[in-house]
Amino acid sequence: MQVVEFPALKRSPEVKSGGKTANADDFSRAVATLRCLNEKDLELVSEEILNQLASPVAMIPELARHLLEAGGKRLRPILTLSSARMLGYEGDHHLKLAAAVELIHGATLLHDDVVDASNLRRGTKTANIIWGNKESVLVGDFVFSRAFELMVAAENFRVLQILSHASGVIAEGEVLQLSTQKNLDATFEMYLAVVEAKTAALFAAASEAGAVIAGADDKTSAALHGYGRNLGVAFQLVDDALDYIGAQDALGKSVGDDFREGKMTLPVVYSISRANDEEKKFWKRVISDSTQNPEDFAQACDLMQANGAVEETFACAKHYAARALEDLSAVPQNEHTLALAALAAQSVERAY
Amino acid sequence: MQVVEFPALKRSPEVKSGGKTANADDFSRAVATLRCLNEKDLELVSEEILNQLASPVAMIPELARHLLEAGGKRLRPILTLSSARMLGYEGDHHLKLAAAVELIHGATLLHDDVVDASNLRRGTKTANIIWGNKESVLVGDFVFSRAFELMVAAENFRVLQILSHASGVIAEGEVLQLSTQKNLDATFEMYLAVVEAKTAALFAAASEAGAVIAGADDKTSAALHGYGRNLGVAFQLVDDALDYIGAQDALGKSVGDDFREGKMTLPVVYSISRANDEEKKFWKRVISDSTQNPEDFAQACDLMQANGAVEETFACAKHYAARALEDLSAVPQNEHTLALAALAAQSVERAY
Repeated sequence: MQVVEFPALKRSPEVKSGGKTANADDFSRAVATLRCLNEKDLELVSEEILNQLASPVAMIPELARHLLEAGGKRLRPILTLSSARMLGYEGDHHLKLAAAVELIHGATLLHDDVVDASNLRRGTKTANIIWGNKESVLVGDFVFSRAFELMVAAENFRVLQILSHASGVIAEGEVLQLSTQKNLDATFEMYLAVVEAKTAALFAAASEAGAVIAGADDKTSAALHGYGRNLGVAFQLVDDALDYIGAQDALGKSVGDDFREGKMTLPVVYSISRANDEEKKFWKRVISDSTQNPEDFAQACDLMQANGAVEETFACAKHYAARALEDLSAVPQNEHTLALAALAAQSVERAY
Repeated sequence: MQVVEFPALKRSPEVKSGGKTANADDFSRAVATLRCLNEKDLELVSEEILNQLASPVAMIPELARHLLEAGGKRLRPILTLSSARMLGYEGDHHLKLAAAVELIHGATLLHDDVVDASNLRRGTKTANIIWGNKESVLVGDFVFSRAFELMVAAENFRVLQILSHASGVIAEGEVLQLSTQKNLDATFEMYLAVVEAKTAALFAAASEAGAVIAGADDKTSAALHGYGRNLGVAFQLVDDALDYIGAQDALGKSVGDDFREGKMTLPVVYSISRANDEEKKFWKRVISDSTQNPEDFAQACDLMQANGAVEETFACAKHYAARALEDLSAVPQNEHTLALAALAAQSVERAY
């Protein structure tokens, strides 16, 4: 696969969060604060994840650990942990749920990388490239089953409903994304439906599960569900923008992957809605007809810079980040709430 | 893919169950009796399955219904229903569990057909051939999630443990099968480990779940778990034998699939253990080196007829069927028990 080098675009100042000159370091600090607040819990979650990946079939822990130890930001388990701790939870079932949430995420990544034929994630080769597609599909199923086994051990039916429902919604979102792929008529609404399902549903369920296990009332659970959902949409929007402007080293994945797969992400949807006749021909050729030349990705980025599509995507992300902040006004205010607020505020500024 | 015509071998009389001249019709009658005993329940289970496959993403119900409406014998849900009813259960949670068990089975079939690149199942084209591999992987994930959602609704933690654990074991078995594929050194023990995990675990969990939801004591639950497990092993052994002698029309899937994929099923394991030097070269070429000519399948069948590998596979299946019958001696004796006993007794005689 050809990787096209392209200089990162500058983001326009008006999409900076709260008008401050925030930057990617502020995002890293927000994540670091959350990691620090949940430090011991996160260690126990990592242990639990490793325990769950144990199997007499050697390939299973090898393949699964390749993905799950490569790190990632562990945002979803952090949401579960901070939601529970914010509400004063002192048990340990939130650890099981946080680990289960990360395992569900891991299983979907294994399957996504097969479906998208990805070759790079978190800076290393993907499991499907190293072990093969069949292996990734089956180990993904194993990881998914272990996630369920673990959440059953937390013995809370409401949490089980929330997380099992979210898993179905994620799969629905992935299928919907597949059916909008290469479809030039895909609208903002269709794009949003994909994002809400494939990404925001698990962010929402992760936050809500932490609240429910802590015995939260309906209003608080709903607020944390809303926070996770809106944060998840903001995150996916930024991800989709970074696929056109991010620096490959910081992202740890190939820039331009969405473009090469013909995914109808928001920058493309916006660009097509503003395209003149000649540009429409370009988008048809590269997205719908899948006839791409090595210089087409740079050309797509140029068009997006000219028509403001990436800036609009960031502006949309900022809108969802602001809604996530609003959701936090309905929950107890303490160091976890502040850190989650910082995460939402900075989520639009990240470069990875 | 080339499908080689081969006349069905005759099974030797000594593997006939109980020395009777039983035949495939007796197996059909045993299944029909169980269907009759659970007729209304099975209708409700079918409805529940259809409800669970509903989705605003049109491709999901289309693809999933293609598989799940193609029929199949519905043996696993029958095990759940008969176990529960045998023990006098009068609630309706067993319907949810039976539907969940069939959905888990359906999800694994969708993924199996991708992994095995199968093109025919239950007499019709597989979903991966009609819709594509990506679609089958993602819809499989959806079906799997819906299975969990449904079993959560039955609100019984023990059942959730049993079924979620079984799901993980199935995936482990599939990975193990993949890693023994094309490996001429695979032993009977390795083969049995694959069968117990990929097939018998769900038969066992399906039976046990029915017992547990009916409030069975540990001894009864264990007996029904054992029945399901032994029946599952017997079934898979017969399946693996039929792949070398079955008639394609009756099976509804391509004969010789296992051979073409280099699967180390018992007929092959036996044949290799008895092979002379020339035969060893044959097995190495067709299984390990995957260099197959159109006439090789017939040659493999000839070798198996000469060395008794298929007969031994049936004898082994008969041994497990007998163990399944023994397990039933520890549970209440009524029409469900009798029908399950007939199923085990006839399972070795089926042609499909």
